[in-house]
Amino acid sequence: MSLVLDPATQDLLFREARTANTFTDEQVTEEQIRAIYDLVKYGPTAFNQTPLRIVLVRSPEARERLVKHMGGGNRPKTATAPLVAILAADNEFHEELPHLFPAFPDAKDAFFSERPVRERNASMNAALQAAYFIIGVRAAGLAAGPMSGFDPAGVQKEFLDGDHTPLMVVNIGKPGADAWFPRSPRLSYEDVVTTV
Amino acid sequence: MSLVLDPATQDLLFREARTANTFTDEQVTEEQIRAIYDLVKYGPTAFNQTPLRIVLVRSPEARERLVKHMGGGNRPKTATAPLVAILAADNEFHEELPHLFPAFPDAKDAFFSERPVRERNASMNAALQAAYFIIGVRAAGLAAGPMSGFDPAGVQKEFLDGDHTPLMVVNIGKPGADAWFPRSPRLSYEDVVTTV
Repeated sequence: MSLVLDPATQDLLFREARTANTFTDEQVTEEQIRAIYDLVKYGPTAFNQTPLRIVLVRSPEARERLVKHMGGGNRPKTATAPLVAILAADNEFHEELPHLFPAFPDAKDAFFSERPVRERNASMNAALQAAYFIIGVRAAGLAAGPMSGFDPAGVQKEFLDGDHTPLMVVNIGKPGADAWFPRSPRLSYEDVVTTV
Repeated sequence: MSLVLDPATQDLLFREARTANTFTDEQVTEEQIRAIYDLVKYGPTAFNQTPLRIVLVRSPEARERLVKHMGGGNRPKTATAPLVAILAADNEFHEELPHLFPAFPDAKDAFFSERPVRERNASMNAALQAAYFIIGVRAAGLAAGPMSGFDPAGVQKEFLDGDHTPLMVVNIGKPGADAWFPRSPRLSYEDVVTTV
């Protein structure tokens, strides 16, 4: 056995975990999201940028505003999931770097003075953190339903500002009836990995 | 307790796991990398794009070619890690979509006929998979040392082709002496999460 992770946890986080398309009406609590964040905040990012920002869409009024920016196939899921999170990248993350990266307090000015550089870094590193967040949702015994099918400009205007770029919207809850599509195939090791 | 993941596994994957800067000389086997891939290949991506491609740099000759493209501070680590992996995004991932996303075989032409769209999707979704890979390395009881400090054009020319964009380079092995820098601070829940 090459993994030290036990098989039940492999199933919980990867093998049996699936993108849920329906949910029960069991609520997702503030405590659960705090516990998820308190775990996944440790995932590594370049220069400890940690540019991920999370908007929890809890009120019926906000939910309605979000649903109208989702792609047609995603609307029923987003309308009915117990909790929906907008994951965004903070393109002004460098303001926090003197605190976040004490090993090199000048990194803010030395590397990140240009906005396009920050945008590239923010989207890349927030995507890493989005993946950690999905793993964290599963670590809480919940199913995640990450979606890229939405109008980014609409979501940005409605819920964020010009410095925050939406990356994905994630439905969160306990899987409901017929929650899963059939598992799609994966590429083989030989298709993905080469050795030089 | 809001997480179902047991505390020892929380430590293994997130809390105690750290970016290693030195390594023992214990080898990282083909079997370990196969086990890691066989676990993390299930992590979700949009349309099951799975654009991550991995180049394992095993030969001394290839290692030497890679080290010269790394930033100065990363060279000693990359020169001495038991194994180094180049993680790249396949910008032509859409060629695999009819196989990978059987639910909608026309997705290849309907959504991904334009190269800039593919590049954005490939880098975003390969970044998600890079994070799953880092978690997988830890699930194998190994330390990962992900690095963004390298010359992307140089690494691309040396090890990839025009259709593959390097995302990060990851040192992999058992942590050696003085492997860790002090843990940098993380943002608080209140700094990251808002509720609407």
